[in-house]
Amino acid sequence: MSSQPAPLLALDLTGTFAFGLNGALTAVRAARLDVVGVVVLGMITALGGGFIRDVLIDSLPPATLLDWRYYTLAAGGGLIAFALSRHLRRAERAIDVVDAVGLSTFAVIGAAKALDAGLGVAPAILLGVITAVGGGTIRDTLVGQVPTVLRTGLYAIPAMVGAAVTALTVETDVYGLPAALGAATACFLIRVLGLRFGLDAPEPPETRGSRAGA
Amino acid sequence: MSSQPAPLLALDLTGTFAFGLNGALTAVRAARLDVVGVVVLGMITALGGGFIRDVLIDSLPPATLLDWRYYTLAAGGGLIAFALSRHLRRAERAIDVVDAVGLSTFAVIGAAKALDAGLGVAPAILLGVITAVGGGTIRDTLVGQVPTVLRTGLYAIPAMVGAAVTALTVETDVYGLPAALGAATACFLIRVLGLRFGLDAPEPPETRGSRAGA
Amino acid sequence: MSSQPAPLLALDLTGTFAFGLNGALTAVRAARLDVVGVVVLGMITALGGGFIRDVLIDSLPPATLLDWRYYTLAAGGGLIAFALSRHLRRAERAIDVVDAVGLSTFAVIGAAKALDAGLGVAPAILLGVITAVGGGTIRDTLVGQVPTVLRTGLYAIPAMVGAAVTALTVETDVYGLPAALGAATACFLIRVLGLRFGLDAPEPPETRGSRAGA
Repeated sequence: MSSQPAPLLALDLTGTFAFGLNGALTAVRAARLDVVGVVVLGMITALGGGFIRDVLIDSLPPATLLDWRYYTLAAGGGLIAFALSRHLRRAERAIDVVDAVGLSTFAVIGAAKALDAGLGVAPAILLGVITAVGGGTIRDTLVGQVPTVLRTGLYAIPAMVGAAVTALTVETDVYGLPAALGAATACFLIRVLGLRFGLDAPEPPETRGSRAGA
Repeated sequence: MSSQPAPLLALDLTGTFAFGLNGALTAVRAARLDVVGVVVLGMITALGGGFIRDVLIDSLPPATLLDWRYYTLAAGGGLIAFALSRHLRRAERAIDVVDAVGLSTFAVIGAAKALDAGLGVAPAILLGVITAVGGGTIRDTLVGQVPTVLRTGLYAIPAMVGAAVTALTVETDVYGLPAALGAATACFLIRVLGLRFGLDAPEPPETRGSRAGA
Repeated sequence: MSSQPAPLLALDLTGTFAFGLNGALTAVRAARLDVVGVVVLGMITALGGGFIRDVLIDSLPPATLLDWRYYTLAAGGGLIAFALSRHLRRAERAIDVVDAVGLSTFAVIGAAKALDAGLGVAPAILLGVITAVGGGTIRDTLVGQVPTVLRTGLYAIPAMVGAAVTALTVETDVYGLPAALGAATACFLIRVLGLRFGLDAPEPPETRGSRAGA
C-alpha cells in the first residue's frame, strides 16, 4: 500500500482512472481493437508512466502493482471506455480534458516522488514529465502514432510547469495538498488553454510549414 | 544461475528458444533485415518479456543475463531462423505453434516468479501476461507493426488463463511441474484452438466492421 | 556524481553530447517537430541507452540522473541542434560521424560498467551494444522509423567490436584510458568505413533484393 497522505493518494488515483479511460478511448479512435486490446492500452496509459518513474528512482516493485486500487482503476477506466465507446469517441474535447487531469496529477506526484527518492530538482522535474507523458507515449507508439509529447510542445511544457512548481514547494518546505493542487491546476490550465487557443512551441526554421507531418 | 527446479528451468529454456526462433522468423517476414537485425529481433523477442518482468519484480540483473543458456538459446534460435528462413517463412502455421509454446511457458514462469517475489495474485497474473507478450510486443513495435496482443484478444487471454491457473496452484500449494505443465497446456490449447477456428474477443460497437484495421 | 576516472568520464560526456546533438538532428530530419519535441528526442537519444543499461545492471537511479553534467549536455546538444538545424540538417555525413562518436564511447563505457557490476563477458558485450544503440532505437521507434540497428548490420557490429575489445582488456587487467580509447577507435573506424564504403551484413536468401524495405 502507498504511504502517501490520503489527499495526494486521491489525486494519484484520479489521474490513474483518467488515463485508463482516456488511453482506452484514444485506442478505440486510433485503431480497430477488440476489448482486450482496448483495456490493455488503457492500462498501459494509466500505469506506464509510473512504471518508468518507479524503475528510474529504484522504487520496485512499482507502487501501482502493490496497491490493488491502482490497477483496478486503470482496468476499470479501460472497460468503461470500451463499453461507452460508441457515445464517447466523438467527444474529443471531453477526452482531452480527462487527459489533462491525468497529465497534471502525474506531473505533480512524479516530481514529488522523485524528490522524495533523493533526486535533485532538475531530474525530479524530468521525472515528473516522464511520469505524466510516459504512459501515453507508449500507447501512441504501440498503435503506430507519433506521440503527443513530440507533436506539440503544449503537452510537455505544462507537465514541466506542474513538476517545477511541485519541486519549488517541496524545496521550500511548503509542499502539501494545497501546493500539490496548485501545481496540478497550473499544469491543467496551461494544457487546456493551449488546446483551446491552439498555442504551440516554435518549430525549427527549416521545416516550418514545409511538410505535412511526421 | 537460476534457482528454479530443473523441469521448470527446462520449460523456461524451451520458451526462450521458441521465441528466439519465432521472433526472428516474424522479423524476416515483416521487414527486409540483414543477419544482425534478424538475430537482434530474435533475442529481443526471447529476452524482452523476461527483462520487463525482472525489472518490475526488482530481480536485477535479469535471470537471462546471468545464465548463459538463456542468451545463447535466444541468439541460437535467431541464427537458425536466419539460416532456414527460405524454408521456414511460409510455414505460418508452424511458426504460430512455436510462438504458442513460448507464450504458454512464459505466462506460467512469469506468474510463478512474480508470486515468488511477493506480489499478489492479480499483479502476478498481469506479470505472467507481460512476460508472455512483452518480447513480441517490442519486436512488433520496432518493425512498425501493431502488436499481436492488441490485434487479437486470443493472445492475451490464453496467457491470462495460463498465469491464472499457475497463481491458483501456487496459492493452494500444489504448484510444481505437473501444475506448471497443466497451466501451460491450458494456455497453449486456447491459443492454438483460437487460431484454428479464428475465434476473437468482442470489438467496440462503433468500429465493428467499419474500418480496415490499425 | 560518477566514480569513473576523469578521462573515462570525459569520454562518456562526449558521447552524451554527441548523441544529444545527433538525436535532435535526426528528429528534425525525420519528423516536423517543435522545439520541445526536438529537445525531448535529443535527450532520449543521449540518455536512453544508459537508462536501459543502468536498469539491467541494477545501478539505480541512473548515473545520468545523478550527475547534472549528463542531462545538461544531453539537453544542450538538443537545443544547439534545434537552433542550427537550418545549417546542419543537410550535413548528413557530419551527423553520421557525430553519431559514430556516441556509438563508440557508449559501447565501451556500457561494457565496462556491466563488467564492473559483476556480469560475465558475453552479457557485458550485449550491454555495451544496448547502451550504444538503445537511445537511437527508442528515438527511431517514436518517430515511426525502423531503427538503424535493424536496418544495417554495420551499426551493431562495430558496437559489438568496441564492447568486446573493452571486455577483453578488462578481463586481462589492462583496461584504462588507452585501452578504452583503442576500443572506441576500433568501433568508430569500422562504423565510419562501413558508411564510406556501403558495407553491410548478409541478408536472408529469400528476401534479398525482393522488397523495397520495412
